[in-house]
Amino acid sequence: MKPVLLFVGGEDLEASWTAAFAELAPEVAFRFHRPGVDLSDVHYCLAWKAMPDLWPRLTALKAVFCRGAGVDRLLADPSLPRDLPLVRMVEPELTRGMVEYVLWQCLFHHRRVWELEAAQSCAAWRPHVYPAPWDRTIGIMGLGELGAAAAAKLVEFGFKVKGWSRSPKSLPQVACFAGRDQLPAFLAGTEILVCLLPLTPETHGILNAELFAQLPKGASLINAARGGHLVEADLPPAMASGQIGAATLDVFATEPLPEDHPFWAQERLYITPHNASDTDPRSGAWRVARQIARCEAGEPLEDVVDRARGY
Amino acid sequence: MKPVLLFVGGEDLEASWTAAFAELAPEVAFRFHRPGVDLSDVHYCLAWKAMPDLWPRLTALKAVFCRGAGVDRLLADPSLPRDLPLVRMVEPELTRGMVEYVLWQCLFHHRRVWELEAAQSCAAWRPHVYPAPWDRTIGIMGLGELGAAAAAKLVEFGFKVKGWSRSPKSLPQVACFAGRDQLPAFLAGTEILVCLLPLTPETHGILNAELFAQLPKGASLINAARGGHLVEADLPPAMASGQIGAATLDVFATEPLPEDHPFWAQERLYITPHNASDTDPRSGAWRVARQIARCEAGEPLEDVVDRARGY
Repeated sequence: MKPVLLFVGGEDLEASWTAAFAELAPEVAFRFHRPGVDLSDVHYCLAWKAMPDLWPRLTALKAVFCRGAGVDRLLADPSLPRDLPLVRMVEPELTRGMVEYVLWQCLFHHRRVWELEAAQSCAAWRPHVYPAPWDRTIGIMGLGELGAAAAAKLVEFGFKVKGWSRSPKSLPQVACFAGRDQLPAFLAGTEILVCLLPLTPETHGILNAELFAQLPKGASLINAARGGHLVEADLPPAMASGQIGAATLDVFATEPLPEDHPFWAQERLYITPHNASDTDPRSGAWRVARQIARCEAGEPLEDVVDRARGY
Repeated sequence: MKPVLLFVGGEDLEASWTAAFAELAPEVAFRFHRPGVDLSDVHYCLAWKAMPDLWPRLTALKAVFCRGAGVDRLLADPSLPRDLPLVRMVEPELTRGMVEYVLWQCLFHHRRVWELEAAQSCAAWRPHVYPAPWDRTIGIMGLGELGAAAAAKLVEFGFKVKGWSRSPKSLPQVACFAGRDQLPAFLAGTEILVCLLPLTPETHGILNAELFAQLPKGASLINAARGGHLVEADLPPAMASGQIGAATLDVFATEPLPEDHPFWAQERLYITPHNASDTDPRSGAWRVARQIARCEAGEPLEDVVDRARGY
């Protein structure tokens, strides 16, 4: 009997994931969630966010797979079974896309595109200088799969890279800082701050006025993690004072970002609609199928979330 | 007696080049050009563009070094001595900066930033999809020092890369085309066209309506070579029709770009003020000093321009 995997997600995603499992993991019975269908034979579930009343109906469930890197949406559901493994998505395409996004945005802020925009808007040819990358300090918050990969690419491009994480890490050519005690030292001198942290009770609201004040005046902020990391009300004043010189945000407290949100019209704030990177269905299906095979063979799952830590 | 090098360039450049030669090449007598000074003992000249009446006064000249990669401005001066070697600048910092610029701009066009700008300007959260890099074809015109390095970096990022050059080349994972005969095959399917050609009589005006028509509809144009490559009058109509979807230009027929030039106000045309990359004084001084040492030792100079070819 094939193991049964239930896919919970938007209907726009179903075709690509169906094709991916059919091609790469025919040994898995891949099924969509549909209202009213019997779920008592489902062994595994692949989802990104919770669904009302879903979990209690999955009586034969062995493990939950998150479709994204961040599991905060799943963990926020108190009905998520506590005794089953929750596996976060680690797959090369998701990482590659995020590295592409971070590098693109760091180059955007490194080259201070808003100065080019301002010159063009008044038809002015202005000399535009920017430092060599080794005179530009970029700080990455979060040194997991995504943060470590982004840091390595920035190092390769010659930037001066600092990293901050909950627990101490060691990465080649990255000045690593850990824990709240070392946060001020990490922030000092960081001209472009990139947030790739997991969202946990500890990191919720970490991007706030107090943190901004510890960056050099005019620093850039790039948030590609979760909207909950940012105290949104703190950003417009920090930008009005020039403490934060420019920002790119991919994630927001409320998504879609409401039409009347002040961020839309904020000068030097660049919005991407939570599309920095996404899990590739083929690469993701391959990864999930391998984990299912491990579980079926009685081997331990990889990338299981530590619920006390929150990621 | 030390070999004497005359530096011809803006006064804003003098301090950094003086410091670079003092530190890295004290064996060279480094001198600025000043009106009225005797030039009969000058052995080498470092310049980017011609200066009226300069060359006939350099009676002891052995070689001319170009401060940039492109020698078109120097070659345009009929009084440049024909029998002396002209050496183009090949130095790692100039190349690195150009690779950074090309990658930044390719990511900018790959992620179709104008769509994000349009959505933000009307406070609209619009799903924004873009292909994987291997479903995006970038074509590089010019496969010399800069073009080959840019192509290699784009390959590393997973893009489908094509290249076109005057004479046949072979580069890893780049589909190479050569000569006018293969230009149509190179252009077919190229979604982002990057010009890094040398400016010669053959390549003057090569970016024109006829070429644009051979690209897929909505293609992007990035010109980081010389303004003379582009027939400027052909671009606004191509953008109005949607044949060229967006463009970034670093170089122009007239620089500074005149205030009343239509490019300033053209939608989806992004202007950088000829600062894609510049020669690093330290790296450049090191390179020029090494060439001077070769010449003084009777060895052949490297990177000598082929005047018939024009680069």
